[in-house]
Amino acid sequence: MEKVCVLGAGSTKYGKLDDSITDITIQASIGAIESAGIDPKEIQAGYISNVFGVADKQVHLGPVVMSNLGIPEKPSLSIESACGSGSVSFREAFANVAAGFYDAVLVAGTEKVTHTGTEWTTTYFSYCSDFFYEGGAGASFPGLFASMARAYLNEFKATEEDLAAVAVKNHENGLLNPKAHLRKKISIDDVMKSAVVASPLKLYDCCPFSDGASAVILCSEKFAKEHSKNYVNVIGSGRGGSPATLQGRDHMTTIPSTKLAAQAAYKMAGITAKDIDFAEVHDCFTIAEVVDTEDLGFFEKGTGVQAVREGRTARNGDIPINPSGGLKAKGHPIGATGVGQVVEVFEQLTGKAGERTVKDAKIGLTHNFGATGASCAVHIFQGV
Amino acid sequence: MEKVCVLGAGSTKYGKLDDSITDITIQASIGAIESAGIDPKEIQAGYISNVFGVADKQVHLGPVVMSNLGIPEKPSLSIESACGSGSVSFREAFANVAAGFYDAVLVAGTEKVTHTGTEWTTTYFSYCSDFFYEGGAGASFPGLFASMARAYLNEFKATEEDLAAVAVKNHENGLLNPKAHLRKKISIDDVMKSAVVASPLKLYDCCPFSDGASAVILCSEKFAKEHSKNYVNVIGSGRGGSPATLQGRDHMTTIPSTKLAAQAAYKMAGITAKDIDFAEVHDCFTIAEVVDTEDLGFFEKGTGVQAVREGRTARNGDIPINPSGGLKAKGHPIGATGVGQVVEVFEQLTGKAGERTVKDAKIGLTHNFGATGASCAVHIFQGV
Repeated sequence: MEKVCVLGAGSTKYGKLDDSITDITIQASIGAIESAGIDPKEIQAGYISNVFGVADKQVHLGPVVMSNLGIPEKPSLSIESACGSGSVSFREAFANVAAGFYDAVLVAGTEKVTHTGTEWTTTYFSYCSDFFYEGGAGASFPGLFASMARAYLNEFKATEEDLAAVAVKNHENGLLNPKAHLRKKISIDDVMKSAVVASPLKLYDCCPFSDGASAVILCSEKFAKEHSKNYVNVIGSGRGGSPATLQGRDHMTTIPSTKLAAQAAYKMAGITAKDIDFAEVHDCFTIAEVVDTEDLGFFEKGTGVQAVREGRTARNGDIPINPSGGLKAKGHPIGATGVGQVVEVFEQLTGKAGERTVKDAKIGLTHNFGATGASCAVHIFQGV
Repeated sequence: MEKVCVLGAGSTKYGKLDDSITDITIQASIGAIESAGIDPKEIQAGYISNVFGVADKQVHLGPVVMSNLGIPEKPSLSIESACGSGSVSFREAFANVAAGFYDAVLVAGTEKVTHTGTEWTTTYFSYCSDFFYEGGAGASFPGLFASMARAYLNEFKATEEDLAAVAVKNHENGLLNPKAHLRKKISIDDVMKSAVVASPLKLYDCCPFSDGASAVILCSEKFAKEHSKNYVNVIGSGRGGSPATLQGRDHMTTIPSTKLAAQAAYKMAGITAKDIDFAEVHDCFTIAEVVDTEDLGFFEKGTGVQAVREGRTARNGDIPINPSGGLKAKGHPIGATGVGQVVEVFEQLTGKAGERTVKDAKIGLTHNFGATGASCAVHIFQGV
């Protein structure tokens, strides 16, 4: 098994973008190629993650991207796992490089949906649930995560203000991220007074619909060493699944796929949650970040909100969560999100995170799931 | 590198189906599981290929399928490469099993689109081209393949009747396939008199829009030997790309990605085109089959039509092409097609192809591409 490294990373701004899905994917890819300092011709395959190419009238994105990069002969494919598409695509690319099928590949995630409007996005996003049981019954994702939030508030010593604190923290981080969608400082009071979307979740508990693209160059250790002294090692990779519907699970306050993916990633890396210096986790709603940090093993079940209250997950805390701003403030272009998390970890571990740098960070983790966590991938990275 | 085997295969009928995309995918998967004689719990991951889940309001199909099979904890993902999705997904599953990440995986391809009507399908399918240059300019796939056909007729000694002969042959094969969409004997005259779709292609030169799902169980040789004596070895796997647009290519009568994928697959298998006993190739239009058989190395460029005229590609010829009926007659449920080709090869090489059995076949090849061949995968199989 080859050691696998992240050699370069690039990203568009997340938010409401005017360029086409093809254009933003190429912009992010060129950013990654320039960051890696390689010739595009050294790329041997392209892994694209995307969910709703139909929104911008372009599916089968791989060949379009590869052709625009001047390497049409190289194989490519698109991978979809709802909001977890980016990390699942990253995992496939990782597996292929680890197995020695490729020395260097492009992993690019992308989404362009904001031009379709909220009705289209809410409707189409609900196709990512088990639509027969959930979306078709009127349960869109804010409703499903609201059910999880209500269960959490009932089961543990937590308040709506505790959830709001997650949003406040992530907005603070996003303010330092020039590529974030929502760069706006907010207060607990702002969150509490924002419009109710699905009680107990309010507008500021929810991540936005975003456009955006992120890309990384993934390669063998040999290839990395030949090109750079400042790359990042992928030391753990894990995947897992959960029952597709919330109603099919034993508990509403934990996501089984996160635990399975994390266990596998920690095992591969030969470390435990205690060794992680910071993490980018899937905070599509504030409740998700709390549940994630417990399922990943950073905190005991039911104590995630306590950790937020104590500032432990802040950028200067003992386990900073979402220094990029997370899905909540950085934004959530669904096919790009998981790759964007890797971009953040790469920048953190190679000294390129500027003002939002997590001090003395050596090991970072990414956690990204699809739907209410039906699919999940966790990766662990270490600087050189 | 582990040796990889196909242990079981299942498929729905192809055609206009009433059941949901979820249901047909599960039906095919259960067929594959029963054919393999395994317990679903032995499956370690699910590779789903699908293009337009939005048509039936279900994307993120993996967890829905795995949950319905009683294995929600197992990871899954969806792969899209337009009409080549099935073979590209098969390739990813192959790579993961070859690398030792999994011992046994489910590979299921699926599509449900006929209920949307021809306008929807023609429009959405055009999103699989480079839409900025092709679909958006009014060039749908019949038009693009018509351009290839016109170039071929101009460049080589070939007639429209030669192309029609491909359709006649594949309909003859489809007549023997109980799961084929179009089970109807046709004559050269029928093809020539059918409505012009995009000159020189007429209705019977075109494959239909189909619903359908196909699935196989892919596993390590060790796993295969523990479960069966009648499985099939995957001895070659190759991928390649072409410029996304037809106008970006040097020639209109060859598909570069086919040549690249075939070269890689032959190299891995340590054989040449001469060693192939039969092949399932991507005949979305009659011209495609002719071009494919030349690019795969079965015939010299420009002589593919001669081979059809001489009956060499018929089921009892020296290199039978599309004994299943091909996309042309068996049908083309786009996300399922590449997996369906593997189902046919499995049945041929394990003595389960009934009336359409290719005599003395030991080595079979599958060839499946996306759009006008922008993405392609070729696989080679050998019976035990």
